[in-house]
Amino acid sequence: MNYYITFLIVCISSTVFAQIDRLEPPFWWAGMEHNEVQLVCYGNNIAAYEVASEDLKILEVKKVENPNYLFITIDSKDKAAGTYSLYFDNGKNQPFRRNYELKTRTANSAQREGFDSSDVIYLLMPDRFANGDSSNDSTSNTVEKVDRSKNGGRHGGDITGIINNLDYLEDLGVTALWSTPLLEDNEPTYSYHTYAQSDYYKIDPRFGSNEDYKELADNMHKRDMKLIMDYVTNHWGSKHWMIQDLPMEDWIHYWEDGDRSGFKRSNYRMTTQFDGNASAIDAQGCMDGWFDTTMPDMNQANPLVLNYMVQNAIWWIEYAGLDGFRVDTYSYNNKEAIATWTKAIMNEYPNFNIMGEIWMHDQAQISYWQKDSKIGAIDNFNSGLPTVMDFTLHDAISAMFNEDPAWDKGFIRAYDNFTNDFLYPDTNNLLVFAGNHDTNRINEIYKSDLDTYKQIMTLIFTVRGIPQIYYGDEIGMTGNKETLGDGDIRRDFPGGWSGDAQNAFTQQGRTESQNAYHNFTKKLLNWRKEKEVMHTGEFLHYIPFDDVYVYFRYNDAERVMVVLNNTSEEKTIALDRFSEGLNGATSGYNIISETKITFSETMTVPAKGSMIIELK
Amino acid sequence: MNYYITFLIVCISSTVFAQIDRLEPPFWWAGMEHNEVQLVCYGNNIAAYEVASEDLKILEVKKVENPNYLFITIDSKDKAAGTYSLYFDNGKNQPFRRNYELKTRTANSAQREGFDSSDVIYLLMPDRFANGDSSNDSTSNTVEKVDRSKNGGRHGGDITGIINNLDYLEDLGVTALWSTPLLEDNEPTYSYHTYAQSDYYKIDPRFGSNEDYKELADNMHKRDMKLIMDYVTNHWGSKHWMIQDLPMEDWIHYWEDGDRSGFKRSNYRMTTQFDGNASAIDAQGCMDGWFDTTMPDMNQANPLVLNYMVQNAIWWIEYAGLDGFRVDTYSYNNKEAIATWTKAIMNEYPNFNIMGEIWMHDQAQISYWQKDSKIGAIDNFNSGLPTVMDFTLHDAISAMFNEDPAWDKGFIRAYDNFTNDFLYPDTNNLLVFAGNHDTNRINEIYKSDLDTYKQIMTLIFTVRGIPQIYYGDEIGMTGNKETLGDGDIRRDFPGGWSGDAQNAFTQQGRTESQNAYHNFTKKLLNWRKEKEVMHTGEFLHYIPFDDVYVYFRYNDAERVMVVLNNTSEEKTIALDRFSEGLNGATSGYNIISETKITFSETMTVPAKGSMIIELK
Repeated sequence: MNYYITFLIVCISSTVFAQIDRLEPPFWWAGMEHNEVQLVCYGNNIAAYEVASEDLKILEVKKVENPNYLFITIDSKDKAAGTYSLYFDNGKNQPFRRNYELKTRTANSAQREGFDSSDVIYLLMPDRFANGDSSNDSTSNTVEKVDRSKNGGRHGGDITGIINNLDYLEDLGVTALWSTPLLEDNEPTYSYHTYAQSDYYKIDPRFGSNEDYKELADNMHKRDMKLIMDYVTNHWGSKHWMIQDLPMEDWIHYWEDGDRSGFKRSNYRMTTQFDGNASAIDAQGCMDGWFDTTMPDMNQANPLVLNYMVQNAIWWIEYAGLDGFRVDTYSYNNKEAIATWTKAIMNEYPNFNIMGEIWMHDQAQISYWQKDSKIGAIDNFNSGLPTVMDFTLHDAISAMFNEDPAWDKGFIRAYDNFTNDFLYPDTNNLLVFAGNHDTNRINEIYKSDLDTYKQIMTLIFTVRGIPQIYYGDEIGMTGNKETLGDGDIRRDFPGGWSGDAQNAFTQQGRTESQNAYHNFTKKLLNWRKEKEVMHTGEFLHYIPFDDVYVYFRYNDAERVMVVLNNTSEEKTIALDRFSEGLNGATSGYNIISETKITFSETMTVPAKGSMIIELK
Repeated sequence: MNYYITFLIVCISSTVFAQIDRLEPPFWWAGMEHNEVQLVCYGNNIAAYEVASEDLKILEVKKVENPNYLFITIDSKDKAAGTYSLYFDNGKNQPFRRNYELKTRTANSAQREGFDSSDVIYLLMPDRFANGDSSNDSTSNTVEKVDRSKNGGRHGGDITGIINNLDYLEDLGVTALWSTPLLEDNEPTYSYHTYAQSDYYKIDPRFGSNEDYKELADNMHKRDMKLIMDYVTNHWGSKHWMIQDLPMEDWIHYWEDGDRSGFKRSNYRMTTQFDGNASAIDAQGCMDGWFDTTMPDMNQANPLVLNYMVQNAIWWIEYAGLDGFRVDTYSYNNKEAIATWTKAIMNEYPNFNIMGEIWMHDQAQISYWQKDSKIGAIDNFNSGLPTVMDFTLHDAISAMFNEDPAWDKGFIRAYDNFTNDFLYPDTNNLLVFAGNHDTNRINEIYKSDLDTYKQIMTLIFTVRGIPQIYYGDEIGMTGNKETLGDGDIRRDFPGGWSGDAQNAFTQQGRTESQNAYHNFTKKLLNWRKEKEVMHTGEFLHYIPFDDVYVYFRYNDAERVMVVLNNTSEEKTIALDRFSEGLNGATSGYNIISETKITFSETMTVPAKGSMIIELK
């Protein structure tokens, strides 16, 4: 009786006196593995309050340096979905209550299957892909306004724009989408890339709402497509509300104890993470230095910080129904902390997939970061990270089509890359790609040579691993980072904005040249989609002689032969050398030229030719 | 009674009827671990004979395809040193006897200590170092005659020449000698390099005798110096007597079964040794292909071949008193077989050292071949090889002094190399070098710039590992492989031949420029010789900023700071960054400039300067 009266009063009072400005996560779910939920409770002098609950067990109430914060750990174990209540009393003001909801999980949520090597990932920058809702191009509560005339400004692309073009992506043969970050980035300039995020529980209103993001995921799932979130653990944006009113000094990395000068740029030498000869100051200088001026480096060694990130990551998976993460600057994080974060997520979703950006140029160094790596084990490290990126293949692709063959040049670069596959614990979980939002566009490097594009895409989509394409490559988009800056490799997709001079989302709207790129890509991707041997088949390759590279994918049921000629001359190759790969096949079907081939002693490969041959 | 009469007859008859042309090993020792000795017995139709012995247990008599061979395994276990007898009878001709001696081992032979990181190795080519005995420049039983006018011809250098100049080497600060091969190479041309050997139990008479070689070792040991033999397992010379009359078809690798065409060049792609994606034909093409036309590839998978090599290697260690092997083209060998060979030697001499030539450009790939490598373990491989060569450091040294500093250029190349040290099971057993007989001379690459030479030598002799210098570098010798061929990087050491225009073995004979190189090298090597911290101390390095590289070696007793400035400007560096390395030191002694330094906040480093500072 007394309880209900109190409750009523509190409901009114908590409306009247908004003592809590933020409560994060805003809700949780019943039946989670991560069931000890640490609520960040933010409000003016909130630390003066005691917290109690009649219906929730409170495991810990942690006060920190800043009295505007309380970290309240509740035990949701065995709790049914429903609304629970927290009671705040500072013995002075009116006590008040705050509800906390445990939602019902979607069926089989924990068992969701992440992206894998059966997928083709399309990477896009949402500000630059399509503007589906011009009403949110600028919003009252975000600082930077739309200005399409600046290549580093906001252009107005959004989630609705992506949803509107899912037909396009599905038709192209894409099965998974990696969008660069979508959470609010309230920097005054250069916010479009959204890697300096200001609110980890809110989609940037210029991209849409949380509900829009969930709708994107739902729409994709209906098409049997997957959504991958670009997650940033290493740094938050300088405008993040917690950065603006730090819970405690060591929430982020200032340079040294006592030095409150703030920004100090990382030395970016990620090798210090494992180099046994490295000085402590250099190791700290990489890990704790700031990635950029607007990006305070997070102190993940602080368990409150790390747990915040764990819960936030799980929250987004569960809320939006995600199928994977791409983790930005993975190898700049505190390595033990990021491993803990990664394992916490994988513990919650054992079949999920997470790929980390390990932008290094040495396979052993990249392998170090993959789950169960024997290289990591040398250093007693196991990240738990399922997927790493084949940046050394990217290095090879960026160089090998522009040079004369030599002992270590031309296709030998790709071949050499794959000779080190044994260093990786799981080559099917290597992201293979010819470019991303941080690299020069492949059609820029190779001066829009269509034959080279075909060779590159043939390679990317037929070798082991998870292929990824960068938006616009499929219509031959160019862009030069060196001379024109990052914005130039992130140009708007033609047709994404009403009033665009052309609409490259449609066959009719594309130029003849764009269709040539597009048609090839579409054919390749849609063929790959159904070819299990391309997803998980064994890989068998031959030393490129004379800059012709021949390799096979095979399993018990199927075999595919790939032949690439990196020279401007037609080549004739003797087939007896490839008997192990051919395995007795006498004919094949070239899925690119759509022609049958009957094998004889030799095979002719066109100049700059790409052949994908299903063996019969 | 009867026995003695028979013995007498046989002694006479075996002299008269020389049924056995070769018996290898020519003798063995009592008390060896390897005590089941397989004697290769070669003589016309010798396989028709039965073999017996009254005083030796014969474990096996193996007949092979060629009737001119018998492989007789005797058991020397628990046998005292002495002369034993083998009895041959074919039931037709006069039976005969052949004595076989088990010699007495030198004291502590099994426990000999191999070369290690306390040593400085001097690599020379004996034909090009010094001609101590002009009477053996050409010999009646070897085909190629001396011709000093050809840069690919024989010049007459020999073992006596080396012995004559041990004073020079000892004075320079050298503690170990690696001579390229000395066993007979009876090729008609280009035999001076001696990697196509024709007799594995005989020093080439143009270099001297087996006794001369032993005398070299003895002389070196008296000076506390060590002798390393260059051993070739991968191939023998085409003129080897066993190649000329093959014991069996699969003694060497012809290309394919049934293809008796002989020579097929290796594809040289050593990565096929571990590449799980490699085709069998490529793997075979590397391993079984011939290194060159005069070098039949040995089939070490044939246990008779492998055992021959094991015994021969042990024989030379025991006979000459060797302190180490350098094994040519180690990674071209059948990897399981070469591991067996290596372990057999290390089993016989547990403190011996063997370094393998693994000429690869990736630390993981080089590490694969080192004993107890975790990289090798991924592939279930353990070579047992104690020492591998730091070829990636050589790659860095060959490039980094000629370029403007950049993210991945200049001293960053050396720094990057050392960041991967964790991939090696034993970095003290890495051979570090700036050049060898197969690479362009370092003073050629850097156009005889003395300051660069000093930087390189400072690096080589102060980082972890076993330093090696190539003969003549210490007097600034040049040579260009690309334009003038191998012979040009193997020019005669001035003063090694009577009548030479100058004698660079003496201070008086050297030019001023040569003395500048020599004096620096001598100072550095002699300083290093007594500095334990440089042999086994920990290594601590700092990211090179502005192309200045700072690192430390330290142990509990001593600390040394090395500062290298790769720019042509004087640099001032702040010292607070190096506090971990300085460890509280307030002053130091620069052993190069022979000056004291009192540390203040900054330190000035001369343009292209090299500083080695003993910390106080």
